[in-house]
Amino acid sequence: MTISVAILGATGYTGGELVRLLSRHQEVRILHVTSERYAGKPLRLAFPHLHNAPELLCRPLGDLAGLEGVDVAFCALPHKASMAEVPALLERQIRVIDLSADFRLQDAATYRAWYGDDHRAPELLAEAVYGLPELHRSAIAQARLVANPGCYPTSVLLALAPLLRGGWIDPQTLLVDSKSGVSGAGRAASQEGLFAELEGGFRAYKVEGHRHTPEMEQELSKLAGLDLRVRFVPHLLPQSRGILSTCHLRPHAVRSQREWQETLAAFYQHEPFVQVLDAGLWPATNHVRGSNFCHLGVTVDARTGWLTVVSVIDNLVKGAAGQAVQNMNLMFALPEPCGLEQLPLFP
Amino acid sequence: MTISVAILGATGYTGGELVRLLSRHQEVRILHVTSERYAGKPLRLAFPHLHNAPELLCRPLGDLAGLEGVDVAFCALPHKASMAEVPALLERQIRVIDLSADFRLQDAATYRAWYGDDHRAPELLAEAVYGLPELHRSAIAQARLVANPGCYPTSVLLALAPLLRGGWIDPQTLLVDSKSGVSGAGRAASQEGLFAELEGGFRAYKVEGHRHTPEMEQELSKLAGLDLRVRFVPHLLPQSRGILSTCHLRPHAVRSQREWQETLAAFYQHEPFVQVLDAGLWPATNHVRGSNFCHLGVTVDARTGWLTVVSVIDNLVKGAAGQAVQNMNLMFALPEPCGLEQLPLFP
Amino acid sequence: MTISVAILGATGYTGGELVRLLSRHQEVRILHVTSERYAGKPLRLAFPHLHNAPELLCRPLGDLAGLEGVDVAFCALPHKASMAEVPALLERQIRVIDLSADFRLQDAATYRAWYGDDHRAPELLAEAVYGLPELHRSAIAQARLVANPGCYPTSVLLALAPLLRGGWIDPQTLLVDSKSGVSGAGRAASQEGLFAELEGGFRAYKVEGHRHTPEMEQELSKLAGLDLRVRFVPHLLPQSRGILSTCHLRPHAVRSQREWQETLAAFYQHEPFVQVLDAGLWPATNHVRGSNFCHLGVTVDARTGWLTVVSVIDNLVKGAAGQAVQNMNLMFALPEPCGLEQLPLFP
Amino acid sequence: MTISVAILGATGYTGGELVRLLSRHQEVRILHVTSERYAGKPLRLAFPHLHNAPELLCRPLGDLAGLEGVDVAFCALPHKASMAEVPALLERQIRVIDLSADFRLQDAATYRAWYGDDHRAPELLAEAVYGLPELHRSAIAQARLVANPGCYPTSVLLALAPLLRGGWIDPQTLLVDSKSGVSGAGRAASQEGLFAELEGGFRAYKVEGHRHTPEMEQELSKLAGLDLRVRFVPHLLPQSRGILSTCHLRPHAVRSQREWQETLAAFYQHEPFVQVLDAGLWPATNHVRGSNFCHLGVTVDARTGWLTVVSVIDNLVKGAAGQAVQNMNLMFALPEPCGLEQLPLFP
Repeated sequence: MTISVAILGATGYTGGELVRLLSRHQEVRILHVTSERYAGKPLRLAFPHLHNAPELLCRPLGDLAGLEGVDVAFCALPHKASMAEVPALLERQIRVIDLSADFRLQDAATYRAWYGDDHRAPELLAEAVYGLPELHRSAIAQARLVANPGCYPTSVLLALAPLLRGGWIDPQTLLVDSKSGVSGAGRAASQEGLFAELEGGFRAYKVEGHRHTPEMEQELSKLAGLDLRVRFVPHLLPQSRGILSTCHLRPHAVRSQREWQETLAAFYQHEPFVQVLDAGLWPATNHVRGSNFCHLGVTVDARTGWLTVVSVIDNLVKGAAGQAVQNMNLMFALPEPCGLEQLPLFP
Repeated sequence: MTISVAILGATGYTGGELVRLLSRHQEVRILHVTSERYAGKPLRLAFPHLHNAPELLCRPLGDLAGLEGVDVAFCALPHKASMAEVPALLERQIRVIDLSADFRLQDAATYRAWYGDDHRAPELLAEAVYGLPELHRSAIAQARLVANPGCYPTSVLLALAPLLRGGWIDPQTLLVDSKSGVSGAGRAASQEGLFAELEGGFRAYKVEGHRHTPEMEQELSKLAGLDLRVRFVPHLLPQSRGILSTCHLRPHAVRSQREWQETLAAFYQHEPFVQVLDAGLWPATNHVRGSNFCHLGVTVDARTGWLTVVSVIDNLVKGAAGQAVQNMNLMFALPEPCGLEQLPLFP
Repeated sequence: MTISVAILGATGYTGGELVRLLSRHQEVRILHVTSERYAGKPLRLAFPHLHNAPELLCRPLGDLAGLEGVDVAFCALPHKASMAEVPALLERQIRVIDLSADFRLQDAATYRAWYGDDHRAPELLAEAVYGLPELHRSAIAQARLVANPGCYPTSVLLALAPLLRGGWIDPQTLLVDSKSGVSGAGRAASQEGLFAELEGGFRAYKVEGHRHTPEMEQELSKLAGLDLRVRFVPHLLPQSRGILSTCHLRPHAVRSQREWQETLAAFYQHEPFVQVLDAGLWPATNHVRGSNFCHLGVTVDARTGWLTVVSVIDNLVKGAAGQAVQNMNLMFALPEPCGLEQLPLFP
Repeated sequence: MTISVAILGATGYTGGELVRLLSRHQEVRILHVTSERYAGKPLRLAFPHLHNAPELLCRPLGDLAGLEGVDVAFCALPHKASMAEVPALLERQIRVIDLSADFRLQDAATYRAWYGDDHRAPELLAEAVYGLPELHRSAIAQARLVANPGCYPTSVLLALAPLLRGGWIDPQTLLVDSKSGVSGAGRAASQEGLFAELEGGFRAYKVEGHRHTPEMEQELSKLAGLDLRVRFVPHLLPQSRGILSTCHLRPHAVRSQREWQETLAAFYQHEPFVQVLDAGLWPATNHVRGSNFCHLGVTVDARTGWLTVVSVIDNLVKGAAGQAVQNMNLMFALPEPCGLEQLPLFP
């Protein structure tokens, strides 16, 4: 089988990561890549690290001829731009994996509340499948439209799913303190993103409310079987890649570290990409860098009763492009790790 | 006035920072610096950045002649080494500012429980004054022995003091998620501290329990007027300096962001080193780098009820050497900012 | 004495550094700061690290009322913007220290060749004094208009002056391989300057020709007493501050490392800010960070005959704002180190 | 075909990188890994990023049973330790790729001069093949013992080979200014390697003479057909991976940038891992990170006559483990890129 793919928005960080992974995927041929800024130019001008990938020419989004023969399109466009393109892709019988936030929230009112605009394709919200394979594997396999999860929600859902589904924790006091590398902010020119602003400059941001919150709440509520809220506080790390989420939880029962660890490990025992670390080891972002893996650590503080789950992912891989490839594999009945076998890059 | 000082343990990061600050303090003369590793050698071999400070020769700890005429000694020795030296210093009528953990805990049993050894000078524990000027200014001024606070506790106590003393928050659910630069781990050779292990490698550590916990609890309990516990989870940042503590709290009352901010601002209105930021601004570690300042930000999440206070300090300055100089100024009736006027270094 | 100063262009990195230094200079009062972007707003919004400096309100460049009573203006405007403002300042009897490149080249044709535009105030070029105190101290003291040197040229001129003036090296084979922190590229939003583009991404740039080349050649030619050329290759470091220049030279004579070192040390023996390191020690950018110091190291390779001189400065201090303050001190007959006593920040 | 391999010294950075690459090499089975420090423990304790590689147990070097059935051994031991092990491996009919410096110099006297010790297996020096495939492809294919090149020499030889072999440059004035990431210094605990010592702390080191110099001279002399010397000055970058070498050369002829570029491009036109960049693009270390690629850029400065060639590699891949795998592929008649197809990781 060869899957013909298009990548819309190929010159951002997520787009570049899709090209990196899909160029080496043995069942994939990249037919079409778009970029407004680099339209008419070779992709390697935007990404010199792709000098040794098969040569690709950037085309503008409006160049529909490039979509001829495409089986699946990866939309790595900004929020709002994506929902303007997806319906036409589906009409052309192209399956879509959308990496923006546009199809993650199933309720159009929630979308408007957090994104400040009316949804332009609300009729697709019910159909779109939330693309976290560990939770929605079979629905993804059948989907026409997959909404690839946000990077923060991926790290949080993988940490909390076993506990919420098992009913182990109080769903009313979920508190998540997350830290992200700066590539999550994208590749657009900005003063805030300059090296000199960020080196040695760890900070909290969007403490009043980050848009990934309703996405977490939607999926966590499904897991818990009730409507819940999460307090989510993100921070910005002086490093390019990686997300670490520290989840602070109130458990319903007194259990040992080992018992909590076994609960997580049992939940993920057949998962190719989620690894619960041995007691005493703690996740670090450079232990998953460049890979699709998620590492989890857990402990309970007997003195205060707080349960702590720590998760790490590479925000551009399991938090974006890698997860999208995992979803594509599911949609085309390939083994899930296909094209994602790379081990993390350390140091 | 000229204060004659000694610095015991001058070739670690805290020692070097004391030399940096005290070399430019107009009322101070550094008489004596010790280092076992560099004994007999000029200090600038250990710290080339001090090439342009007054020349100092390192002596071994046992060289007591160097203490002749010393008014105050800064002990920047490792834990346990410090309590072996302090009694003799006091006997020589030298006032002591101890930067180790040895005299911070007033209860010898707590010391043993967290540090694994019997205290060697328990008779001094009652006398030692916890050196956080914002809380214990008058006691510090009179003290023979000041226990300089830990870096994490400084960042947490400054964030929580106004709220606990005012009775505004539930003292039974204190949760602190802190992130520290790596200079806090000291200057001893280690694999874990290598650049290549840490670049891009944010991680949690000592999640099961960090020794700064009982120190926070001691001081927070005094503020609250009852015995409380805090859940404290530290993390390691890929940057040299800076601590940011995100304090997650349950308030007793529903109040606006502005009200919380005013509570903090009122508490610190006369403090030279603590600054509550305007609404919408959030603290960043590179906004206090190299200075003795603490920046605070606060907000409340109406959706979940969580109150969030974020504080930043430079762990080597307000979290160690700068605070020690502030304490010295108090002990010798100098204006508190004396020698600490430097503005932060950004970028 | 109190010197009243204005800072034009206060919200770039050089401007911020001027405020940091001048706020703590005991003989200076900052009367006026300009910023187009932050006009009408407090400077601390642009620079939260200046929260604890005296409060300053940004005004637009056109607000001439702010210049009333100003003794000296620091122009930290972009190239070309500066030469549009300087003549009017001088007419108002305000002395000017210009930190742009506009008045460094004494030949208007050279300016046009490298900067691509006609000079707008060529009549001032002969009067402007090149502001490297170690070479032009007495002229600076008398100057109405000082052209503050570029960061790269400062690092190179301090390394080569003793050798060229002494006639020790072949002036026809000067080769300089320099490496700069990214703050040198300024604070304007750009994709190239993003943290994620630069972390782990050391590179050469402007290898075909950098605009600091003719500035070096002008001053080196004066030192050598003949017209010379230098091959200058700059590189970009993944760090915010610091320049290190490795100068590769062909000496006229066979001399030992010690002899070369003594030549440099003798030349700078009375200089407050230039330090020749002991044999075996080599300059590092974090040993001068935040300070006005320059460190020099030298050795000769007997096998190949190459002489190597390495210099480091902080590009924003000795390479910009600190040197400007040093020049101001000279112009107002203050001791040169006034306001520049800060020791480097390490780590 | 399945090649059975052993990795001696698997818990250093080079060893870990060999495991990362060989775990995903389809024709390889890792039979045996050694580590003194982790003997008896799973390798993933030393390298948590290898949690998802096939499980491997570390054995001590003395455990010879582990070598049963091994076809080829990768020696990633320290200098001097390696030459003590290699002869016995060869006697067991195991082919050896040695990543230390022990078999790179073909002259035992040169080894003694630079490494300070007598060589322990001088009889093997004539047989050992210098493992730079671009220069010695056919000899490598036949070799029993391959001496894998040093990281600096790899970057320099690839930059200079086309020019020296073509007789284009003066072989008596070779000047190389190199900059390396810190992983090149290895994983042993040290104060010098601490994050806090290096962040923001670019520096030159071993300016008096680095041990990679004679290795470069040996291979460059072969290329030039005469005995030459090179002046090599290394520097240490605040980043984990990557080497950039700036080669400053005096050409014999006046040629344009395009002509120089074509000379390089023609030389490497059939090479899978060496890429000459288009004019105007310059190599950056993060454009080859994690990959076996080398990027080259070239220009000539008409004003001074200097020719500049810039090369970048990942010091742990093309500069060590990747090149070793490339050599293994040659030795076992596999396609050279086998197991080395990974594209660089950016950002």
